Amino acid sequence: MTTPRNQVSSRRATALIRPLVRKLHGYVPGEQPKIPGLIKLNTNENPYPPSPKVLAAIKAAADGRLRLYPNPTAQPLREKLAELHGCQAENVIVGNGSDELLALATRAFVEPASGARSASAATVQYFTPSYSLYSVLADIHGARRRAVALDADFGLPGVAELRRTGRWDFRAALSFVTTPNAPSGRGYATSQLDALCRAHRGALVLDEAYVDFAEEHALALALKYPHVLVSRTFSKAYSLCALRVGYFIGHPDLIAALDKARDSYNVNALGQVAALATLSDLAYYRGNFQRIIATREQLRRELVGLGFAVYPSQTNFLLARPPGFPASEWLEKLRARKALVRWFAAPEVKEYLRITVGAPAEARTFLRAVSAILRD
Amino acid sequence: MTTPRNQVSSRRATALIRPLVRKLHGYVPGEQPKIPGLIKLNTNENPYPPSPKVLAAIKAAADGRLRLYPNPTAQPLREKLAELHGCQAENVIVGNGSDELLALATRAFVEPASGARSASAATVQYFTPSYSLYSVLADIHGARRRAVALDADFGLPGVAELRRTGRWDFRAALSFVTTPNAPSGRGYATSQLDALCRAHRGALVLDEAYVDFAEEHALALALKYPHVLVSRTFSKAYSLCALRVGYFIGHPDLIAALDKARDSYNVNALGQVAALATLSDLAYYRGNFQRIIATREQLRRELVGLGFAVYPSQTNFLLARPPGFPASEWLEKLRARKALVRWFAAPEVKEYLRITVGAPAEARTFLRAVSAILRD
Repeated sequence: MTTPRNQVSSRRATALIRPLVRKLHGYVPGEQPKIPGLIKLNTNENPYPPSPKVLAAIKAAADGRLRLYPNPTAQPLREKLAELHGCQAENVIVGNGSDELLALATRAFVEPASGARSASAATVQYFTPSYSLYSVLADIHGARRRAVALDADFGLPGVAELRRTGRWDFRAALSFVTTPNAPSGRGYATSQLDALCRAHRGALVLDEAYVDFAEEHALALALKYPHVLVSRTFSKAYSLCALRVGYFIGHPDLIAALDKARDSYNVNALGQVAALATLSDLAYYRGNFQRIIATREQLRRELVGLGFAVYPSQTNFLLARPPGFPASEWLEKLRARKALVRWFAAPEVKEYLRITVGAPAEARTFLRAVSAILRD
Repeated sequence: MTTPRNQVSSRRATALIRPLVRKLHGYVPGEQPKIPGLIKLNTNENPYPPSPKVLAAIKAAADGRLRLYPNPTAQPLREKLAELHGCQAENVIVGNGSDELLALATRAFVEPASGARSASAATVQYFTPSYSLYSVLADIHGARRRAVALDADFGLPGVAELRRTGRWDFRAALSFVTTPNAPSGRGYATSQLDALCRAHRGALVLDEAYVDFAEEHALALALKYPHVLVSRTFSKAYSLCALRVGYFIGHPDLIAALDKARDSYNVNALGQVAALATLSDLAYYRGNFQRIIATREQLRRELVGLGFAVYPSQTNFLLARPPGFPASEWLEKLRARKALVRWFAAPEVKEYLRITVGAPAEARTFLRAVSAILRD
């Protein structure tokens, strides 16, 4: 019996793939279906469009200049971000979304486990639950993962507690703290983050993807401590998911290390144009933050009224434990009514749905779907 | 005497950076100066703008949808590319420029040297001279570099010769072949590439960034051999450097491995829109290829007439050894006359200038600058 040719090919191709990549479970992004009438509350996108000035800037830049490479360091954008945050351009690196920079940080700061001089040197550390990408980044890099449980109410354990239990590695090569936290929506006080930063020795990324919807931010810590980086994105608060622009703020030496390891032209030109225009029209976005926060608070009250257990949120989404049947069933029932939310199988959150705060009309439609399911 | 605070900070930050990143010499992209009146012939950009239909498609997409994430796999674009190349969407992966995919290939197929089971498993191999990024990618990944000299006339050594001299590792985890070659501009016959692919055992990327200006292409080899990938880009031939879209064609298992290791939303939405619109207007671009080839041939004849030694080219640039004084001096003299070309310090090419073929008017202005320098 002969082996079919395509099986031989497949065996030969597979042999070329690194064992760690063969075993890898890649990050699973939320769905991006294009179903008419769908209420899409699954990937924490902003319900409001980018500012008209941003759209106009993109259109004005869509000309023959697209034949040219973009500014390789996104220099004008770095400078404007530095001005905004009261630092220097050397404190800023721009990425193809903050995801690119999170991945880059693993490559710049973490040794693969196979060649590391110590366990800490090969460790990517993060709290659970938090952004599910971090563990994938550790796996892709062949690093060790260290997942540290948040408190049961998703609070950040204090430094004394972390020391006492020995569950946090203060010398881990790279640690990620999602603040405010996803998927819980819980915000952390800058004073508590400061205490963690002060005690910590490895590189620490404060991932502030959702911070514009929170009561405070911790950007100052990236300028205070040489081992702390703050991650920001234009995706969520600034309605620019499509164009992939995020950035890190931190010590110039850490920024320079990331800069050496990135792709040469990592940020597309229209992303740079859009982000620059966004920074010239912040008032527009601040109005949207207020609207989203107001919708969030009302949605939360109404869900509580319908029997959901809902955590307070400092983000543009809510983590809610639905009544009656399991969250995974709710996911399907809601989908059948064209309302898409997110459910994670991780044990700490599997009883919950993560619901993006949409526009008021989307929230109303969503609540009608919830009521109908409860009546069924 | 106390150590200044910023020195302490810097020492502390530097200690967090992996030794291999500290030692890294990053890729140096060609300059992107915005000097009025400059003739920019240094980064092989296309002198012609994207098709009006492409610009219109971008403008039409610059609306509220930018708040949403792009299609995570660039699926419609994969499908259209598959149709163009007579393969399946599973044979295609789209990247944030082909640079991203070249880097991804090192991470998916090559072990860092510290943990590798054999030298070959940790080897990134490439001919010299070729695209100077490959060695940087090896360094970033902690892999071994294996640089193999092309023939003196930049021809590809035959398989028998590579075997006899033992200078090519047929089992290297990942090998790059720039075809047509950069910076020499020399094209390689598909039959010769086929012979190399047939004899080779590791993963092999045929980097066809410039192939639309050549007499033949080797895309069929990516569909014939399970270990061969072909790399293409929309940057050069399709005037879209700014938007960062490139792709690989190859065996579905290799493509799936790259897909698992990439960032989740690696290709920005307007890049996807522009690339799709490009594929609907190929006649426009084919006209430009013919124009660029005609300008290239005329520029070559004129440079030869002025005393330059110029290699035949199958790309949108020429490699030319200037008369009179060293190439590095020519670079400065040309720059003083607002004509920017590229010079590489690598020993095999340091006597040459790499001159992008611009529009006819740019070629004329460039030739006037050359003549004036010769008269000085």
